[in-house]
Amino acid sequence: MTTWALLLEYDGGPFLGWQRQAEGLTVQGVLEAAAARLSGGAPVGSVVAGRTDTGVHAAGQVAMLALPDGLPDGKVRDALNFHLRPYPVSILQAVMAPPGWNPRFSAIGRAYAYRILNRRAPPALDRGRAWHVDRPLDEGAMAEAAALLVGHHDFSSFRATACQANSPLRTLDRLAVSRRGEVVEIVAEARSFLHHQVRNMAGTLKLVGEGRWRPAQVASALAARDRRAGGPTAPPDGLTLLRVRYPQDPFAAPGQHAPATGRTPAAPSLG
Amino acid sequence: MTTWALLLEYDGGPFLGWQRQAEGLTVQGVLEAAAARLSGGAPVGSVVAGRTDTGVHAAGQVAMLALPDGLPDGKVRDALNFHLRPYPVSILQAVMAPPGWNPRFSAIGRAYAYRILNRRAPPALDRGRAWHVDRPLDEGAMAEAAALLVGHHDFSSFRATACQANSPLRTLDRLAVSRRGEVVEIVAEARSFLHHQVRNMAGTLKLVGEGRWRPAQVASALAARDRRAGGPTAPPDGLTLLRVRYPQDPFAAPGQHAPATGRTPAAPSLG
Repeated sequence: MTTWALLLEYDGGPFLGWQRQAEGLTVQGVLEAAAARLSGGAPVGSVVAGRTDTGVHAAGQVAMLALPDGLPDGKVRDALNFHLRPYPVSILQAVMAPPGWNPRFSAIGRAYAYRILNRRAPPALDRGRAWHVDRPLDEGAMAEAAALLVGHHDFSSFRATACQANSPLRTLDRLAVSRRGEVVEIVAEARSFLHHQVRNMAGTLKLVGEGRWRPAQVASALAARDRRAGGPTAPPDGLTLLRVRYPQDPFAAPGQHAPATGRTPAAPSLG
Repeated sequence: MTTWALLLEYDGGPFLGWQRQAEGLTVQGVLEAAAARLSGGAPVGSVVAGRTDTGVHAAGQVAMLALPDGLPDGKVRDALNFHLRPYPVSILQAVMAPPGWNPRFSAIGRAYAYRILNRRAPPALDRGRAWHVDRPLDEGAMAEAAALLVGHHDFSSFRATACQANSPLRTLDRLAVSRRGEVVEIVAEARSFLHHQVRNMAGTLKLVGEGRWRPAQVASALAARDRRAGGPTAPPDGLTLLRVRYPQDPFAAPGQHAPATGRTPAAPSLG
């Protein structure tokens, strides 16, 4: 068997998240079903960098699976895409996985974008792809508050009660807020995140943007180390996993005619 | 009755185009049904700036309809959006129409964007919103060819055989080609376009981008004044009506907290 590293893009809208379920459509489920078609029908298991929740999108998810030997790179990508055609899931690259590499445990950075459509009228072109907030947001105040969250902290106030991580300590490397016309975008980068951490931070920054919280209240919420002190969880529609970073990028090999994340509006510096 | 000018956004995917049909979902159909709810159930007719085809999107379509007197601006927009909720159609602005104004005949400019996703992997996040072209495109050659189409010409070579315009003469003010990562975008501006003109120009420029046509062949195709000399019609998925221009913009009134087309990636200069 040959182990493959896959770079994937998907629209989370129709899926109950990444992880396979007994019933219901999941990204892992349709990917593994497509892979089984290349494996003579034998079941194929996969490992993923980050299990996204129901409705969350990915521009650069990373997964690993094993297939029978002898398939060239382009063939694996194209054949998986052929079998994935009914679903909004696309394999951007398939490369042989480096020895000992694991998409989850080898990762040293993850970047997410959270998009807010900030206008009175509901989204039509951005349906399912942004959080609709109709009160005008002050992105300057949001950026000021975001800066208070960057660094090594106990993020219990922004952690889902169901979070299974051993520790609430995380190092948030970047939390940037910017506006382009009607869209306010929050980009978050860390080695790893707690469950719902990005959506809980986005829901809190929205309160600041509306003027309902002062930026300093975000620091107080962080210091409380209590989920009840943080703001509400923003809906999944606005969240996209942009990129996963590794000490050596398995997808950096030449021969691709366009960069995998080149069309992401706010590509983070994942150097 | 009060006549309203509407600025609309819609995802053309689920619709058989703008124009009401005896059967099937159309943008005009769902808009007029929503308007009838504000009119005590009485039928409401609408006039539109440009009848978009099946699957074509709009970020700034303009329409006009009459409703009973006494409804304030924000109420018309919000109430129409409430009744439009099942559909990806959103009223961005509703303002009282200026006397004598007509969305179609008063228009002095229309801008469209045509998006091509240029990579090997099929679209997942851009499904239904871009033309997938997997051969690498030379956007420089496409821009060179596009420049040959700008100006006052007989566009018969780029006109649908079903086109009902009296004359094949049009003045193309702008035809710009640019690349952002994997996305090649063509922006076209003119007072008006022939049926399928933008999609036929896009299909032809794609041949140039692939190296199958030299840029000069586009000038020869134009000079032939024969639809058979032009390239194929690009699919509707990539096309978006960006903006309609009037001598005095009815939507330029103050009181909107974000510009209507501010989030369009390549907002054209529409004076």
